[in-house]
Amino acid sequence: VDQPLQPETDDRPVPGFVAVVPAGGAGTRLWPLSRAGAPKFLHDLTGAGRTLLQQTWDRLVPLVGADGVVVVTGRAHRDAVAAQLPDLPAADLVGEPSPRDSMAAIGLAAAVLVRRDPDVVIGSFAADHVIADPAAFRATVQQAVAVAREGWVCTIGIAPTHAATGFGYIRSAGALEVDGAPDALVVEQFVEKPDAETAAAYLEEGGYRWNAGMFVVRAATLLGHLRMRMPELHDGLVEAAAGLEAGDESVLDRVWPGLTKIAIDHAVAEPVAAAGGVAVVPGTFGWDDVGDWASLRALLPTADGVPTVVGDGSRVLSLGSTGLVVPASGRAVAVVGLDDVVVVDTPDALLVTSTEHAQQVKDVVERLRATGGQDLL
Amino acid sequence: VDQPLQPETDDRPVPGFVAVVPAGGAGTRLWPLSRAGAPKFLHDLTGAGRTLLQQTWDRLVPLVGADGVVVVTGRAHRDAVAAQLPDLPAADLVGEPSPRDSMAAIGLAAAVLVRRDPDVVIGSFAADHVIADPAAFRATVQQAVAVAREGWVCTIGIAPTHAATGFGYIRSAGALEVDGAPDALVVEQFVEKPDAETAAAYLEEGGYRWNAGMFVVRAATLLGHLRMRMPELHDGLVEAAAGLEAGDESVLDRVWPGLTKIAIDHAVAEPVAAAGGVAVVPGTFGWDDVGDWASLRALLPTADGVPTVVGDGSRVLSLGSTGLVVPASGRAVAVVGLDDVVVVDTPDALLVTSTEHAQQVKDVVERLRATGGQDLL
Repeated sequence: VDQPLQPETDDRPVPGFVAVVPAGGAGTRLWPLSRAGAPKFLHDLTGAGRTLLQQTWDRLVPLVGADGVVVVTGRAHRDAVAAQLPDLPAADLVGEPSPRDSMAAIGLAAAVLVRRDPDVVIGSFAADHVIADPAAFRATVQQAVAVAREGWVCTIGIAPTHAATGFGYIRSAGALEVDGAPDALVVEQFVEKPDAETAAAYLEEGGYRWNAGMFVVRAATLLGHLRMRMPELHDGLVEAAAGLEAGDESVLDRVWPGLTKIAIDHAVAEPVAAAGGVAVVPGTFGWDDVGDWASLRALLPTADGVPTVVGDGSRVLSLGSTGLVVPASGRAVAVVGLDDVVVVDTPDALLVTSTEHAQQVKDVVERLRATGGQDLL
Repeated sequence: VDQPLQPETDDRPVPGFVAVVPAGGAGTRLWPLSRAGAPKFLHDLTGAGRTLLQQTWDRLVPLVGADGVVVVTGRAHRDAVAAQLPDLPAADLVGEPSPRDSMAAIGLAAAVLVRRDPDVVIGSFAADHVIADPAAFRATVQQAVAVAREGWVCTIGIAPTHAATGFGYIRSAGALEVDGAPDALVVEQFVEKPDAETAAAYLEEGGYRWNAGMFVVRAATLLGHLRMRMPELHDGLVEAAAGLEAGDESVLDRVWPGLTKIAIDHAVAEPVAAAGGVAVVPGTFGWDDVGDWASLRALLPTADGVPTVVGDGSRVLSLGSTGLVVPASGRAVAVVGLDDVVVVDTPDALLVTSTEHAQQVKDVVERLRATGGQDLL
C-alpha cells in the first residue's frame, strides 16, 4: 500500500450512500403551529434557528454531501422545501402528487437513485425528528451502511429511555458478523405500539429498541424485496422514476393515484424480518419524533420555576409558572401561576393546554375539521 | 288634596337628584383588556353588548333622566366617554387634568351642581361596577335620596355574600326614622379591608355591610363638610366649578394640580360617621366591583364543564376545561384539559392564568412597567 491508511472519521461523506428524506405528516398534535399548509418539518420547533427539515439536512450532509440528499415531499410543500434548503439540487426534490405513505415515497426515491448508481445504499430519515448527538448518529449510520452493503435491510433501533407507548419496538436476536458494524444485531421481530404494561415488560426484559423508521438498505435490495412482495407497486414506482429521470413528471402523475398506500414497515421491514433478512444497529444518540408539545418540552433544556420558551422570549413574562410557551405571533404572553402549562400563540389561533393533555390536541384539530374551522387546519 | 296620590314607582326620575359618575381607575388586575389608555369602564366586560360605563348609564337614567348624569373622567378618556354616551350633554362631562382621587372628582361635580340647583341631592356611582338587579338598586337609591334630603351623608351598604377581604365594611347601629327610607340605619363606623379571620367574624356578628363607594348626599351638605374639614380643597373646587360653569376650563387647569389627593371616604365619610352624621341603606341588588378576572367569572352565568366566554364564542373551542375565556382579538382560542383557567386574548397581549391566581395579574403590570413594556400598559 503506497498511501497511508486513513481512519474513517465522522466528517467524511460515506461513498455510495444517499439519504432519502420523506417530508410529510401533518403533525396535528402540534397544532396550531403545525398546519396542513405548513407542517411540523417546516418549523423551527426547537428554537435552534433552523427548522426541523433544515436540522435534518444539517445532520445528513456530513454523511452524504450536499448532493447526496433526496427529499420526497407533497407538491404543496415543494416550494417551501426548496426555499429552506437552497443547496438541495432541483433533481433531488421529488414532489408527490398526493400522500401515498412511506413505501411509495421511499420506493420512488430508491427507483430514481438505483438508475443513477446500481450499487447505491440509501437511508431513510424523517424530516421532522430531533437528534441530540449528531456525531453519535453519524457513527451509527456508518455501521448501518456497512450492514446494508452485505444485503441486509438495516434499521436503527433507539435505546428506550422510558416505557413509551407511542412507538413501535424492534426485538433483536443474536449479533451479526459484519466488518465495520460491531454493534449490529439480527432483528427477530417488529412489534406494534404496546400498552403501558407491555412496554414496561419490554424494558425489563431488554433486547427491545424503538423503531424510529430509519431504514438503511441497498436500493436494489429494497426494490428486489418490493418486486417479490408487491410487484404492481414496484413496477409503478420504477416507471415513475424513469419518467422523472427523463424530466417527465407526467408519468408520476398518471401512475401515482393507483399505487397501494402502505408503510414501508408493513410492506417490507416486517415480512423480511420474519424471513431473517433485517438487521438493527442500536442507536444512543438521543432521538425523539416530537409527537406533541409535551414531547417537545421534555427534549428541550428546562430551568427551574420558569416555562421553556421556544422562540423569542423577550415578550414572554412568567410568574410562578412552568411548562412550554411558544410565542409565535410576536404578541406579549404573560403566564401566571400555572404548572406544566402549554401556550402556543400563533397569528390566527391560540392553544392553551397542559403537558398532561398534550395528546388531546389532535382532538381539537378533528373538531375544527368537523365544525368549519378549515382555515385553521 | 285635590289630586290623587301617586305612589312612587321605580320608573320615574327622582326630582332634584343627579348622579355623579367618577370614571377612573386603571383596573390593572384586568390586564390585558384594561389598559391605561382604555381602562376597565370602557369595556364590555360582561359580554352584555354594553360597556360597564354604558351599563352604569342605563342603570342611572331611569333614576335621574338623561340630563341628570355628570361624568367625571380623565381628559385622556373624555372623547371615549362622549362616544360611548351620545346622550350625555357636553356640559355634564367633566375632564380631570390629572387623577386627584375621589374627593376632588365628586367634590368638583358637587360644586358644579350646587350652582345649578342649591338643593340638589347627588349620588356617586362608580363607572365600572356591576349590578345584577337594577330595579332593586333604584329602590335602594330612592331611600338613600330621602335620607340625604334630611341632611345625612347616606351610603349604600351591600349585604355581604361571603367573607370578602377586598372591600371595606360599614358597621351600622340603630335604625333611622326617615319617611321614605324604612331600611335606613345609622352608621357607627367605616372599617378598612379586613383579613380573612376578621371578615368571617364580621359576617358572624352581623350588622356589617360592604362599602361600595356609593354616597348620596345634598351637594350643599357635602361641600359644607368639606369646607369645615379641608377648606383649601373646598375653595379650589368651588373656584374651578365657577370657571367650568362660565365655560372656562383654565381655572380648573390652574387649580387642579394643587388640590389634595384624597378619597371621599377619608376626607368626609369616616370623620362625619365618627361624628354621627352618616346613614346607610342596605342594598341587596347583587353588586360587584369586578376587581379581577376571578370576580368577573364568579358573577357571570356558568355552565358545567365549559369555560365562560365573554364576547364572541364562535371561535372558542374547549375540551374538558372550565374557567374564563375572553377572545378579544378575534383569533381562534382552543383550551384543552384545564380547570379554572383564565385566558384573555387581545391583539397585542395574551394572559394565561387561573382564577386562583387572578390577583397576581397586577404583578404582571408592575413587571411590565419596570421592564420596558410601557406599550402594553
